[in-house]
Amino acid sequence: MCLPGTVEKVAERARTEGVSRRSFLATAGAAGAAGVTATLLPAPAEARGKGRKRRPRALDLTHTFAAGFPMYIGNEPSRRTLTTIPADGFYGQEWTFGEHSCTHMDAPGHFVEGGRLTPEITLSELMLPVAVIDISERARSDPDAVVTPDDLVAYERRHGRIPRNSAVFMDSGWAKRLPDEDAYKNADSSGTYHFPGFGIEAVDWLLDRRSVRAIGVDTLSLDPGNSTTFDTHVTWLGADRFGIENLANLGKLRPRGATAFIGVIPWEEGSGGPCRVIAYS
Amino acid sequence: MCLPGTVEKVAERARTEGVSRRSFLATAGAAGAAGVTATLLPAPAEARGKGRKRRPRALDLTHTFAAGFPMYIGNEPSRRTLTTIPADGFYGQEWTFGEHSCTHMDAPGHFVEGGRLTPEITLSELMLPVAVIDISERARSDPDAVVTPDDLVAYERRHGRIPRNSAVFMDSGWAKRLPDEDAYKNADSSGTYHFPGFGIEAVDWLLDRRSVRAIGVDTLSLDPGNSTTFDTHVTWLGADRFGIENLANLGKLRPRGATAFIGVIPWEEGSGGPCRVIAYS
Repeated sequence: MCLPGTVEKVAERARTEGVSRRSFLATAGAAGAAGVTATLLPAPAEARGKGRKRRPRALDLTHTFAAGFPMYIGNEPSRRTLTTIPADGFYGQEWTFGEHSCTHMDAPGHFVEGGRLTPEITLSELMLPVAVIDISERARSDPDAVVTPDDLVAYERRHGRIPRNSAVFMDSGWAKRLPDEDAYKNADSSGTYHFPGFGIEAVDWLLDRRSVRAIGVDTLSLDPGNSTTFDTHVTWLGADRFGIENLANLGKLRPRGATAFIGVIPWEEGSGGPCRVIAYS
Repeated sequence: MCLPGTVEKVAERARTEGVSRRSFLATAGAAGAAGVTATLLPAPAEARGKGRKRRPRALDLTHTFAAGFPMYIGNEPSRRTLTTIPADGFYGQEWTFGEHSCTHMDAPGHFVEGGRLTPEITLSELMLPVAVIDISERARSDPDAVVTPDDLVAYERRHGRIPRNSAVFMDSGWAKRLPDEDAYKNADSSGTYHFPGFGIEAVDWLLDRRSVRAIGVDTLSLDPGNSTTFDTHVTWLGADRFGIENLANLGKLRPRGATAFIGVIPWEEGSGGPCRVIAYS
């Protein structure tokens, strides 16, 4: 894996040039890490003229893509070191995982023959205003709680109409159970999961009455964990919409007014797949 | 891989609910596909008040993440089908690849021991104004062409100062050689690659005189293909900056005024890794 002569030359250059000369890590700050709190963004070049206001605030809605992250079904993601700096001059890993690992998209083609696949999701669908439906209080006492039409109506009464071409995210408080796999899956003795999701009535309500592009959840599935018929998947993806599972930090997101960037890798013939989701407000 | 009873129930629901009822694919549009031209974005909810202007224009700078995409070194990405809708009720793939596949980030820790890894790249570094340095004309006659300080000075004379906390992308026209691996690598009879990159003098100029967070290239490496010492990697990453390789569509991007969203998946202990890069202007 190593190019001839690379190790020595890289090491030499690092010694004499890179590290010492450039005050390596002096500027790191290392607030870092997905799942960390809000950060101020630099204002884009053109937004810095007089009369412009504060910088947009960014919030990471993505879990670190980690080996062993709990899966709804199938093998957990795994990684191995391919090269190291001492041996090869540069460090890199190899990953193996199913597309429905960690924070990821469900494309229409995940459940529907002929449905759109990941590279066919348009750019206009990857930057959406967000409505956050908070059912965390109910989910605390009832792990089978689902988003209902009443939740959507109550949201609109308080925060105004769900915007056109938006994403509607369920905040059930479930992400706090990570990294405890058992608590996150919450399986009973028969193996049935119990965690919140979107109820089919809420999905029907959104499709019939509003123009929404995506739904997202802070759990392992768009459907509640105890579903055996996957009504929400079939109906939502069947309507050519996509979903996002295993979102992070929804409890820190304002209920309305944020815009989510959904940075899905355009996985070839993908049924969805890992994405970076960041909210700006 | 299939849950008991899933196939039948999903198929039934798809027949009776999803597809027919929801006029499946009626809204698809399917402009889709990474690497496609600019798309109008819906204006965020709060930007639609009176007095606001046009929607931001989006341009995908990401190649489709494809099995067999040319690698600088190491195995090409591979995929296999894990489940299908007829057999399992839902479709999904498994991927295996090295972190430096397709459009991807090089984090500081890729070349420097103790350097920041992917999850430590801060949110403020993932949304940057972009300066595009066009060396495509020179690269047409000289595959070993590099970005020089003269190119940067000429850029600033024409387009104004490189913004603070920006990304500087090299447009060498090289992405047009894809998907022809031989043309993209352009190896001579000894196996040495010949494609453009950032010259070390340009990197030094940027580090000494401007405040730039990222450099990016439309080739396989931040360094020119014929480099054996990787000066640009070592110096740039050694200064706690990151790079992006295999960018797409840079020839369609305005030289200044766009903002790039760099949606890198927060790969655990990642040396960088696949990212979705979209420019807005």
